[in-house]
Formats: sequence, structure tokens, C-alpha cells
Amino acid sequence: MKFTIKRSAFLKSMADVQRAISSRTTIPILTGIKIVANEEGITLTGSDSDISIETFIPISDESNTLIIEKTGSIVLQARFFSEIVKKLPEETMEIEVLDHFQTLITSASASFTINGLDANNYPHLPVIDTNESFHLPVGLFKQVIGQTVIAVSTHESRPILTGINMVIENGQILAVATDSHRLSQRIIPLEMTEEQAGKKYNVIIPGKSLIELSRTLDDNSETIELTIAENQVLFKTENMFFYSRLLEGYYPDTKRLIPETSVAEIEFNANTLLGAIERASLLSHEGKNNVVKITINPDLVEISGNSPDIGNVQEELDYISVSGDPIELSFNPDYMKDALRTFGQTTIKIKFTSPVRPFILVPSENDQTFIQLITPVRTF
Amino acid sequence: MKFTIKRSAFLKSMADVQRAISSRTTIPILTGIKIVANEEGITLTGSDSDISIETFIPISDESNTLIIEKTGSIVLQARFFSEIVKKLPEETMEIEVLDHFQTLITSASASFTINGLDANNYPHLPVIDTNESFHLPVGLFKQVIGQTVIAVSTHESRPILTGINMVIENGQILAVATDSHRLSQRIIPLEMTEEQAGKKYNVIIPGKSLIELSRTLDDNSETIELTIAENQVLFKTENMFFYSRLLEGYYPDTKRLIPETSVAEIEFNANTLLGAIERASLLSHEGKNNVVKITINPDLVEISGNSPDIGNVQEELDYISVSGDPIELSFNPDYMKDALRTFGQTTIKIKFTSPVRPFILVPSENDQTFIQLITPVRTF
Repeated sequence: MKFTIKRSAFLKSMADVQRAISSRTTIPILTGIKIVANEEGITLTGSDSDISIETFIPISDESNTLIIEKTGSIVLQARFFSEIVKKLPEETMEIEVLDHFQTLITSASASFTINGLDANNYPHLPVIDTNESFHLPVGLFKQVIGQTVIAVSTHESRPILTGINMVIENGQILAVATDSHRLSQRIIPLEMTEEQAGKKYNVIIPGKSLIELSRTLDDNSETIELTIAENQVLFKTENMFFYSRLLEGYYPDTKRLIPETSVAEIEFNANTLLGAIERASLLSHEGKNNVVKITINPDLVEISGNSPDIGNVQEELDYISVSGDPIELSFNPDYMKDALRTFGQTTIKIKFTSPVRPFILVPSENDQTFIQLITPVRTF
Repeated sequence: MKFTIKRSAFLKSMADVQRAISSRTTIPILTGIKIVANEEGITLTGSDSDISIETFIPISDESNTLIIEKTGSIVLQARFFSEIVKKLPEETMEIEVLDHFQTLITSASASFTINGLDANNYPHLPVIDTNESFHLPVGLFKQVIGQTVIAVSTHESRPILTGINMVIENGQILAVATDSHRLSQRIIPLEMTEEQAGKKYNVIIPGKSLIELSRTLDDNSETIELTIAENQVLFKTENMFFYSRLLEGYYPDTKRLIPETSVAEIEFNANTLLGAIERASLLSHEGKNNVVKITINPDLVEISGNSPDIGNVQEELDYISVSGDPIELSFNPDYMKDALRTFGQTTIKIKFTSPVRPFILVPSENDQTFIQLITPVRTF
């Protein structure tokens, strides 16, 4: 294998692949990055066996200034190799595999010779044995991930809750995540063929995979292609294949957790409320109970927190409108902050049913497609 | 105590004082920030007993929009208090001490009540019992610190080497630091009265103090005043007093370590050489010996590194001029990188005497006032 390439093009492709590479793997070759040069271009592969990422640098794209003198393949230790590529002195670099998998990396008068591994020993990527796939706008799909991943559980005690449940049917995707204290749900429309419309797909994708996917997705790419196989999901963009394993098991029925009625409703600017929660949580973080209290009366809407050793905080809240019964309840302000941040600069409604039952946050203008749910903390 | 103030002015002053406050102190009150309001303004104090910083916010400076309604004082837990001030909703805030040292912090509709401590229990700052002082340009003094502090020892085995030795005499300051493997020395001129010119001051200031001082020094302040007392040094700028204890003991005689002759000399652009050393050190960092080799021949100047497990690197160096005998020696590339960074964008000369004796780096245009010295590593 021997090729020259514009270093910045190689670096970008390599950075995406590296998201899948973990230094803590038990399979030594997976600390490496696989490089394959063929007639069409260069393919880079990285994997931690949960996630595998493959990127392609085509010769046909002249901005890569890629010239392949000899096809072939090699596996190079990823962290170390990427450090070298980053520090090379010139914009162009050459990579050549010598005898015994030794690899020569040159740029201007600097040359590195590093020990590589036989690419034939690199594990095979999952085989996706279906052609059935869906197309989604990248921006919208990133939004779905960002809005639901906050509620994914980080505890391995119930592995199924470390994933996002995606149910595809009737021309839509319903994405939901819950750690049993809070829940995030977003519904988006999905273009389907007539044949697809008759089926139902129900998968649980690890939250970690979706976070990494979201980071590799370029806002410039327009669509992403989603293919679901037996125990894998594949996301395709123009020059990237992103594979993730699926979580096995049944996701809990979350529909019944979402209250359908409310006794009190209050409308806020999401960002204004976030500022107040951040202040109130300063004190609750210091105390034993990480809890903040909201009090809604016809003449006063107030948030308060206290930590006996340190002091207390209270703040009268600016709201847009309020209706229903007076209510007072306590909640974990960190859940509230996470939820509020997913709305951005918009107005939201908070709907309460009782001081001990979950309350929901929804966008003011549309309360059907996006819901954040938080369970109150009992303080009495 | 009760006052209102522009929050950004308070934050800036508080950030400087916080540099002296450590959460790991064994004296609980020193985790706090002392606030004193008198007729002239607000004084903030922080200390870890090695370093003490006092900043002053004058009423006379109208940009502070400081109004003192009641003089007084309080000590508030620094980390927590600063978090509150940072997150307050409005540009103006009010601080009021209530009964039992409870302190009310308000801004718009947000109010915090936190428990404070009696400022009378806060330790007294060192007493500086001399009026004799020197004035220095801030920019130049920051440069001296930056250029010498790299060679300060981080090991407590020889505490004296954790400081920078400053010798003031004959109208100049000689600053020197060494960790016994490398040495940095810078000499700058100093304005002195006739009386001062006849004396000699020899102090060792902890490197840690000078790093923190350097960080608090605003590039907009023009001069800094330096006062040396028995076991303390005081640095004064317009609105800040920075106290540091001095290290006790005798600093080694470093003059004899600096070679006066050389057998080989080579001139580089400091930044170009830095790039090459950074590349060579990628490999040496992976190996057991963190060592890079430089080879100077009439027809080739080369740097190389190798790590048997991983590979090797070599690079022909661009240099400006070379003279003297051929030489080959090995050194710790981290020392070289630190030293090269202190020169910035300039050309330097490296002067060698032997493969086993220290070599020096000096600016091309002036080899008297600034020297970086590095001891080679014996590899044979």
C-alpha cells in the first residue's frame, strides 16, 4: 500500500473513525485503525465491537488530492498514529507499507517508521442482510437524539434503559428514553414506502452509540439512511457507515406513564426558567437532598431551595400565564435543567396532576410530538 | 454591612482573590473570602497562608457603580459564594449582612441567604515593615516569570529548588531557576535609588506564587511595585496587594554551571525547531527512555527518536547556520520544548561543549541576558 493525500482530508475522516475506537478494549487489534487503499479511494475503519465506523475518502473528490500508487491495507495503532498525522510539518503526507507491516509516514523532511498489524486479522464488520431502509433529514435526527438521550439511564442495573427505544410505524418514528425517574419522548414523521407502512419496527439503540453518531454527523450532510437488521442498525451518510449493535429485550411500556390530564398549568420562557433553576440548584447541590421546590399560587409563583448548613435561596418567577389549582412540589433540579435545555429558546408549558405524580413539560405551540416528563421527589 | 455594586466589577476582583484560596486548607476560615466595606470602597481578601491577595474596589471609580449603605465586614465561603455571584440574574447585586453573620445576596427577584463567618476571626495579613521598594514594567516582569518558572523543581525533596532565586544588585534583577537537570536565567535592568544601588537583595520566591501572580497581572497595568521584607515579598499594582512568603535557605551557586565556551554552535528559528522536537518526542514518550538524539555534521543536521516496540522517527532539520565540530548527543525533548517555547518567534543559538556536558540556548541577537540550559542524557 502506498498513497499520498491532503493531510486535512485524512485527519477529518480519521477523527470520525476514532470515535469508535476505545483504548480500553480487550481485543488488541481494535486499538488500531484499519486503512485500506483500493482503486476508488481509502477506507478507514474503527470499532469497539459495539460501534463500528467506516469512512471513505474517494479519489474522485479532487479536494482530497489523493493519489494511490499501490493498493493494499494495514492496521496502525490509532492514538499514536493520529498524533503523528496531526503533527506532520506539511499539508501533504505519504503513507507506505514496507516489509513486515512496517509503515513509513513521510511529510517534508520528517519520516516516521512504525510497526503495523496485518489487516487480515481485523474483525469483520457486521453483515446487514436487508435492503430495506429509511431516509431522514440529518438535522432533525440529531435533534431527536439530543432531546431523548438525556433520559437514558447510566446505570447498568437495567441494561435495557441505557438505550433509546425507537418504534417505527404508520409513517413516524417514536423515540423514547427513561431512567425510571424521568422520560423524554419525541415523535417525528418518516417517509415510507407502501410496503414499509404495513410493518412495525421496534428497536432499542444504545444511548452511547447515538451520542457518538450525533457527534460524527456533519450538519452539512442532508440525509441519513437508516437500515435495521437482526441485531444491528446501520446509519449511512455520503462517506460514512456507522454500525451499532442493538440492545436485546423488551422496552417497558412507557405510554401509560404519561399523564393525559392536568390540574394546573403554567407557561414559561424555557430559558428564563432555566436561569432560575440553575440558581436554586446551587444550594440544593450542597445539601444532602438535591431538591428544589416550586410553589404555584394565584398571586405568587416561586422557586426555593435550602441547605441547612449553608443557607437558602428563593426567587419569584417570571411566567407567561398560569391556570388551574394551586400546587407545591419538589423535584431534582438537574432533571429539570436537562429537560429545559432540550427546548432551546422557546416557550413551554408545565402540566401538573399532583405533588406526587409525574409532571410534563411540552412546547407551548405543540404538546403532542415532544414531551419531557419528571417525577417529583416526595419531601414529606 | 450593606452595599450594591455592578456585578461584573465584583466578579473580576473576586476572581483575582480566589487565586489565593485553596479548598484543601487545614484552616477552615481560609476557604472563605473576606469582604470589608468602608467609606472608600470594598476590600476583598483571600489567602492560603503561603499567598495572600487583597483587591480593592474604590467608590471613586464610577464604573463600579458601588454604593455603600453601611460599612462592615463578613467572611463567605469562597467557592459557593462565587458560584452565586456568577449566576445572579441582573447586572446589579446587593449584599447585606443580617443577624448572626447571615448574609443576604439579592439581584432582581432572586435572593440567597447564606451563613457567613465573623471577619474578626480571619488571620491578619503579613506586616511589611519597610518602605523600600522597586518599580518594574508589568509586561517585562511577566516575561521574566514565564521564562524562568519552567525550570523550577516540582519535587519537594529539595524545597529550595521549588523557588525562583532573584538577586537584585547593581541596577538589575538576575532571576534563575533550576531543577538540577536544566536551568533558566534572565537578567533585566531595574531602576534604583542611589541608596538601593549600594545594597544587595537575595530572595527565593516560590514558583507557585509567581505563577499565580503572573495570572492576576493585567496586561493593562503599567508597573508593579516590589517590596521585600524579612520573610515576605509584596507585589503591588493599582488595586491589588499580592503577598508571598519567601523560601528560607541558600540557593545553590548556579553561575559555575553555565559553560562559557563552546565547541559547536548552530542557529535555528525557535519555532521551526520546536515543531521538529514535538514530532520526535511523539515516539520517545511511548518508550522507556524519553530521549531524542540530535546529530550535527557538516553535511547533515538531524533529529531522531526511537521506541523499539513502536517504531522510529527521523527528520533533517532546517537551520540558519552551523559552525564548530561535529557533535551527537541525546536529551529529554520535554525540557527542550519548554525552553524553546520561552523564546517565541525568534532565532536562537544552541551552543554545545561536549555530549555529556550541559548545552545552552540563547537568543541570536543577545546571549548575555537570557539563557536556557539543558543537561544531556547519557545513552552509552
